[in-house]
Amino acid sequence: MAERRLNIGVDAMGGDFAPEAVVLGAIEAAGVLPTDVRLTLVGDEAAIREIMSRQGAASDLFDVVHTTEVITMSDHPAQAFAKKPDSSLTVGFGLLKAGRIDGFASAGNTGAMLVGSMYTVKAIEGIIRPTISSQIPTLGGGAALVLDVGLNVDCKPDVLDQYGMLGSIYAEKVLGIENPRVALLNIGEEREKGNLATKAAYELMEGTSRYNFVGNVEGKHIFTGEVADVVVCDGFVGNIVLKQAESMYDIARELGMDMNNDFFRGLNYEHVGGTPVLGVNAAVTVGHGRSTPLAIRNMIMQTERAVRSRFVELIKEILS
Amino acid sequence: MAERRLNIGVDAMGGDFAPEAVVLGAIEAAGVLPTDVRLTLVGDEAAIREIMSRQGAASDLFDVVHTTEVITMSDHPAQAFAKKPDSSLTVGFGLLKAGRIDGFASAGNTGAMLVGSMYTVKAIEGIIRPTISSQIPTLGGGAALVLDVGLNVDCKPDVLDQYGMLGSIYAEKVLGIENPRVALLNIGEEREKGNLATKAAYELMEGTSRYNFVGNVEGKHIFTGEVADVVVCDGFVGNIVLKQAESMYDIARELGMDMNNDFFRGLNYEHVGGTPVLGVNAAVTVGHGRSTPLAIRNMIMQTERAVRSRFVELIKEILS
Repeated sequence: MAERRLNIGVDAMGGDFAPEAVVLGAIEAAGVLPTDVRLTLVGDEAAIREIMSRQGAASDLFDVVHTTEVITMSDHPAQAFAKKPDSSLTVGFGLLKAGRIDGFASAGNTGAMLVGSMYTVKAIEGIIRPTISSQIPTLGGGAALVLDVGLNVDCKPDVLDQYGMLGSIYAEKVLGIENPRVALLNIGEEREKGNLATKAAYELMEGTSRYNFVGNVEGKHIFTGEVADVVVCDGFVGNIVLKQAESMYDIARELGMDMNNDFFRGLNYEHVGGTPVLGVNAAVTVGHGRSTPLAIRNMIMQTERAVRSRFVELIKEILS
Repeated sequence: MAERRLNIGVDAMGGDFAPEAVVLGAIEAAGVLPTDVRLTLVGDEAAIREIMSRQGAASDLFDVVHTTEVITMSDHPAQAFAKKPDSSLTVGFGLLKAGRIDGFASAGNTGAMLVGSMYTVKAIEGIIRPTISSQIPTLGGGAALVLDVGLNVDCKPDVLDQYGMLGSIYAEKVLGIENPRVALLNIGEEREKGNLATKAAYELMEGTSRYNFVGNVEGKHIFTGEVADVVVCDGFVGNIVLKQAESMYDIARELGMDMNNDFFRGLNYEHVGGTPVLGVNAAVTVGHGRSTPLAIRNMIMQTERAVRSRFVELIKEILS
């Protein structure tokens, strides 16, 4: 008997260039994904099929689930999720909860993606606060996984400690980094440095046996990759760090610099694909609102790796 | 009668390359400063005079105050300030308190510089927490003044509001920016975004008549300079932003990029000179530990501008 197929749900209506960019990206992904993976596109079926047809894609390339509503970028996340029950995003999470898909990816409203995650598949028991992370490129050609990057702006020390665990598992199982080095983002390398939250978090983290804590790192260490594979911080700091890092791309372009190297490719969100929601009971990926077909393709590939890695099950095991 | 001379004190023993780099930088500064400025070098007189003589500098180019002790980078700030009463740093602050110099600059132990400021000239009445700031270059060729960058890691909203005022006065009077735009560093531009401290600070800042508050800025806006001249944040966030910004210099060098432009020159601390301590009763500048003669020269020039601008007096007037 063949292995059970993996089914990845994709919000065809999510993102600034949907459904066009999403369908094109899904077609690209379908061409490179392992044969045991099936994609389910959720959205306006006529629009999806028109794009597929125009591209010469086989009509059975995807499962298509038709929906009539769309949650926009300006919609209030919680209200929209409830008030638009036939939106692609709400229906997608329904499929995920029902087990009809194994993972769900959308470049739509980030807040609504988080609301959907919490209302349907819910946080893993024992997880205080789920988190979103981002891969920031390092000079060695790799990337540092930074978390949280905007979900929880005021983090208690035990939340930061849990982020270390979540980031370590994701880095090892999905990004393929062996025994990832986990660091706390701080204003100095010495253990006594920091604000109230990081000082207390350091004490929790240095005693852990759940991940490989390597101590504090400073802002200058994020890009070198020499010190840490996973960088833990609260969502306020992480969001500012991430947006500052992304702006380097714009600066380099503005200054006419040569960006044809791994570092700047890594800063380009198109190549990263998306942000996993960590700590919920399924693989959920949030793509960039401006996602191009390439970005969508990579968002789908990342979701597939996340599902296949069974990192969610591993987190549950560790917490149980 | 001639205008009263300005006298700027310089810690000749402060910094990794002292006294050599300090004396060389002071000689360079003396060559370009207005004729009403006199420099007082505080440190080992024999060493200072040996370097001056070697450079062919006139023996009366500086006032020299001889000291026998040095506070090192690894000394505990408060203990060292008290236990080394004849250190160049402690004596320098004594001269400042006594009015024998009008401003004081050192590339030595930052913590000891702050202790010295607080113990001698003291915080201006009404200032909750003095602050240190940094100029981060912007694409337009200017710079954004970011504060705090590491002194106060857990800031209450009223402290952030006061940083807006201090930054605005410094930007206008010392950096020459007319009606500076003051922004709060945050994770979104909307007023309801942020952590507990920034949400409360926003409410204080938007109602102010003491400076030109332009709202929230994100991490990506720091370098553009399009939104703000002064960026307010707590010292934890500011320190990480600053070190991340400085690491761009190393990244660009590592990637072999062309750094011959104003942006990268602005990231080079040698061109900025130093960090003013804002909110104390005198112009005090902290230079970079690795200061070269060029960095020392610019640290002195910046201190001279600060003294001449009378920004300390202006802060006092506003608070009284």
